[in-house]
Amino acid sequence: MVVAENKPDAETVEGKSKKQLKKEQKDAEKAAKKDAHKAARGAATEEAEESGPDVSAGKYGSLGMIQSSSDPELLAREFVHVRDLDEKKADQSIWVRGRLHTSRAKGKQCFIVVRQQEFTVQGLLAVNDTISKQFVKFASNVSKESIIDVQAKVSKVPKKIESCTQKDVELHIQQIWVVSAAKNQLPLLIEDASRPEKKEEEETEGLSIRVNQDTRLDNRVLDLRTPANQAIFRIEAGVCQLFRDILTKKGFVEIHTPKIISAASEGGANVFTVSYFKGSAYLAQSPQLYKQMAIAADFDKVFTVGAVFRAEDSNTHRHLTEFVGLDLEMAIKYHYHEVLDTIGSTFTEMFRGLRDNFATEIATVNQQFAVEPFQFLDPPLKLEFPQAIAMLREAGVTVGDEDDLSTPDEKLLGRLVKAKYNTDFYMLDKYPLAVRPFYTMPDPNNKKASNSYDMFMRGEEILSGAQRIHDPDFLTERAKHHGVDIDKIKSYIDAFRFGCPPHAGGGIGMERVVMLYLGLDNIRKTSMFPRDPKRITP
Amino acid sequence: MVVAENKPDAETVEGKSKKQLKKEQKDAEKAAKKDAHKAARGAATEEAEESGPDVSAGKYGSLGMIQSSSDPELLAREFVHVRDLDEKKADQSIWVRGRLHTSRAKGKQCFIVVRQQEFTVQGLLAVNDTISKQFVKFASNVSKESIIDVQAKVSKVPKKIESCTQKDVELHIQQIWVVSAAKNQLPLLIEDASRPEKKEEEETEGLSIRVNQDTRLDNRVLDLRTPANQAIFRIEAGVCQLFRDILTKKGFVEIHTPKIISAASEGGANVFTVSYFKGSAYLAQSPQLYKQMAIAADFDKVFTVGAVFRAEDSNTHRHLTEFVGLDLEMAIKYHYHEVLDTIGSTFTEMFRGLRDNFATEIATVNQQFAVEPFQFLDPPLKLEFPQAIAMLREAGVTVGDEDDLSTPDEKLLGRLVKAKYNTDFYMLDKYPLAVRPFYTMPDPNNKKASNSYDMFMRGEEILSGAQRIHDPDFLTERAKHHGVDIDKIKSYIDAFRFGCPPHAGGGIGMERVVMLYLGLDNIRKTSMFPRDPKRITP
Repeated sequence: MVVAENKPDAETVEGKSKKQLKKEQKDAEKAAKKDAHKAARGAATEEAEESGPDVSAGKYGSLGMIQSSSDPELLAREFVHVRDLDEKKADQSIWVRGRLHTSRAKGKQCFIVVRQQEFTVQGLLAVNDTISKQFVKFASNVSKESIIDVQAKVSKVPKKIESCTQKDVELHIQQIWVVSAAKNQLPLLIEDASRPEKKEEEETEGLSIRVNQDTRLDNRVLDLRTPANQAIFRIEAGVCQLFRDILTKKGFVEIHTPKIISAASEGGANVFTVSYFKGSAYLAQSPQLYKQMAIAADFDKVFTVGAVFRAEDSNTHRHLTEFVGLDLEMAIKYHYHEVLDTIGSTFTEMFRGLRDNFATEIATVNQQFAVEPFQFLDPPLKLEFPQAIAMLREAGVTVGDEDDLSTPDEKLLGRLVKAKYNTDFYMLDKYPLAVRPFYTMPDPNNKKASNSYDMFMRGEEILSGAQRIHDPDFLTERAKHHGVDIDKIKSYIDAFRFGCPPHAGGGIGMERVVMLYLGLDNIRKTSMFPRDPKRITP
Repeated sequence: MVVAENKPDAETVEGKSKKQLKKEQKDAEKAAKKDAHKAARGAATEEAEESGPDVSAGKYGSLGMIQSSSDPELLAREFVHVRDLDEKKADQSIWVRGRLHTSRAKGKQCFIVVRQQEFTVQGLLAVNDTISKQFVKFASNVSKESIIDVQAKVSKVPKKIESCTQKDVELHIQQIWVVSAAKNQLPLLIEDASRPEKKEEEETEGLSIRVNQDTRLDNRVLDLRTPANQAIFRIEAGVCQLFRDILTKKGFVEIHTPKIISAASEGGANVFTVSYFKGSAYLAQSPQLYKQMAIAADFDKVFTVGAVFRAEDSNTHRHLTEFVGLDLEMAIKYHYHEVLDTIGSTFTEMFRGLRDNFATEIATVNQQFAVEPFQFLDPPLKLEFPQAIAMLREAGVTVGDEDDLSTPDEKLLGRLVKAKYNTDFYMLDKYPLAVRPFYTMPDPNNKKASNSYDMFMRGEEILSGAQRIHDPDFLTERAKHHGVDIDKIKSYIDAFRFGCPPHAGGGIGMERVVMLYLGLDNIRKTSMFPRDPKRITP
């Protein structure tokens, strides 16, 4: 466990040395333990001798490990989500379970912020007839990120609380019980990990504590608690749900394809090897062969969502060694544009669904990572490869008719397309045959072109697809032309020997779609537990 | 490619020797080639010299490989699905694309059956003013399983056609074009692979051609074309969709967990090793740790659908080395029955959804594999472990209070429960602590029991789950008690150090659910491309 170089939050630092801070923390830990212990015993005796009976006895303490007891009082308790705390609940006494986000003791008062997922509310505890000094002390010693059950009266506030998501009410605390205590020393603070990413010139000096990416990923359980991350992974769930629902409505059937395969169909580069009992096997780089077999087996239109593995030593912002593939394949009657248009409308519907159903989550991400809203057209823009080449040349790029696009060219093209058509999504059809794999169907009218396409979001590729050759003899001929060892792809070719409809399809990188939809700068932000050549933990 | 020992269908055998059959097949192949060749040239010259001009010229032949040409005549063509051919379409001329399921030439006539997915229709071609001898000969020579485009007039029939799914109409064929030709020699015939599985005593001798499981799996592209398989994998897609939709409605968030992991959390047995660049890694046996981390990261209720790997050398009807896990995990307030009841109602809703939305598919499976309809209760039956032990003992089984249930005991218990409660699904709660993993939360009231459960369908386990220990100190204590090496599970324990809500969950084997819902006898029937210790192809 790497402990990040985070200062505790600014307010408590105020000129104290590291040593002082450490001592204070130790004292706090001791006090918390002592208090918890007392509370467990009824929170009375010891303190009573010092300062009279504890009027809050039985109103605070540790709940102990919840082991599913059948205490009827506990089981009857009803909770309100922090999200739902508003003026309508004013003057009601309610229970919430949340995390202690921050706490600040001031003499006989203690202000806390309770967080539940991306929602926060302020709570107040002040010594009075029913709230003891001991209770306030206990509250101020609970460690940040601990989970607490709080009973409180909801109270309207005269002035909006800008620092919380619930701005119109605060909680006047009646009880606090610790459900699960966090360590005092956290490797990162949620406040720091949530801080908006401003441009350098905007930063106010001294308040710009940042958490670097490795610290975040090493402590993902904490990092994922930020409002932006809570939102990102809800949006990601939305992308998958939309992809499946839209295709199911279009008549597609979901299938599951094996990840363990016996042979690397595309020649064996970039494949992970698995020990398989006394032999060995590989991890599938793509479900393509299996999708195609499902088509040859009459499933007509299929999709699959699942892990895809790439043993590429690429350490970039957009490569993972394991990612989630959103794959589809579809039989056609006579033209692969039947599929191209199906994929195009799937994306348009998906973008519309995200915009309409995830407005709150998108706004939450935007608070930390300011991005331009995603623009799209309906129907989507479809360009042909020669048009793209012409646009690039007009912009001064030297590129051959049969060259593949470099990543910088793709980026530039994305900007040119955005400027001309105002869309962050487009489809690029008719790639040169020379730059596509052997199984790609050539264009019937242009020997140098193929029935293949890529799709782009904000200038980065998120889908690659094509009409596949479904004729075994022609497939063999094309494989030979590419110098592919026919023996190694025999089972692939054989899958088409029992009659196979013409078909086309494509594969989408899920994490890329989410990254680029939100305009984030790194794919590790949209993979819950990312895998790259240097990281396989946690 | 293993060629199965299948006889061609019974009707064409009629006392012919293998040699004769082979010769006939060769002749047929030759004729087909010749005809296709002629058709491609306009189907005129050669035959014309023999028997006058071909009045059907241009009405049949090979369409050639569909490469996405822009022929406006083809692109304008509209197709009707075989499923939709009924009396309402009588006297209309329509196009269908399907497979040549069977054909039978009788003098100047040729009967064919066209199949599209699980639907079949009879077609008729007879020599007359507009249909040439050559056309009929061409049709009778098309190889089975070839994909054909057929233009035909839909015609009501006086007597129901019992051998087809479309019983009220037949097709009077006007054109036949081969889209994709199948090899003449098929390793299995769809008719044989679709034959109902009767009990031995019911079998009529000589008509009981069966296709064994390895032949099916070796030629899965053909085997999957049977009506039962078309239905099984649509039902499987339904199970996943229902699982996700029901949980999403209950507030769960879908997550994706890595399959490549750095350490085998449960001790390292039964794990596949992966070469990972210069080091090595493992394939995840379960998403459990990651689901739990998502709970510790405040996602509250999560599910994940994905590949799960088990390096167990178990060659049984119910074990796979790779399967699809339907996993869920949920934070609780005070009692793990919050989760148990959530899972229970998820199953009930799923069973109801299958029954209501997949009646046709279930009936289709039932035609080949006769099974009892699946019975379930709402709310589902919940038994406690001691009750199960009592039922088994009453049935004469000797079993200790803290013994785990053997597979035969589970089966028997399933029968006893079915007889007593009339349900094929039930939940068994409160397993002995001694038979569950170290992370299982002990029962607070009974030292020998635990907060854990299994669920069963038709007497076989399909889910295992529990409340997990969320307290790092207690988890360490329990791990030590189980003799687990603490160093190896450090990251697991550390995930709970920053405050974690109490939680419970479970993992479901998707293929088992489908197998047992339908009452099938082997899990390889519900995995599209199954993986076991002896099979990683196709």
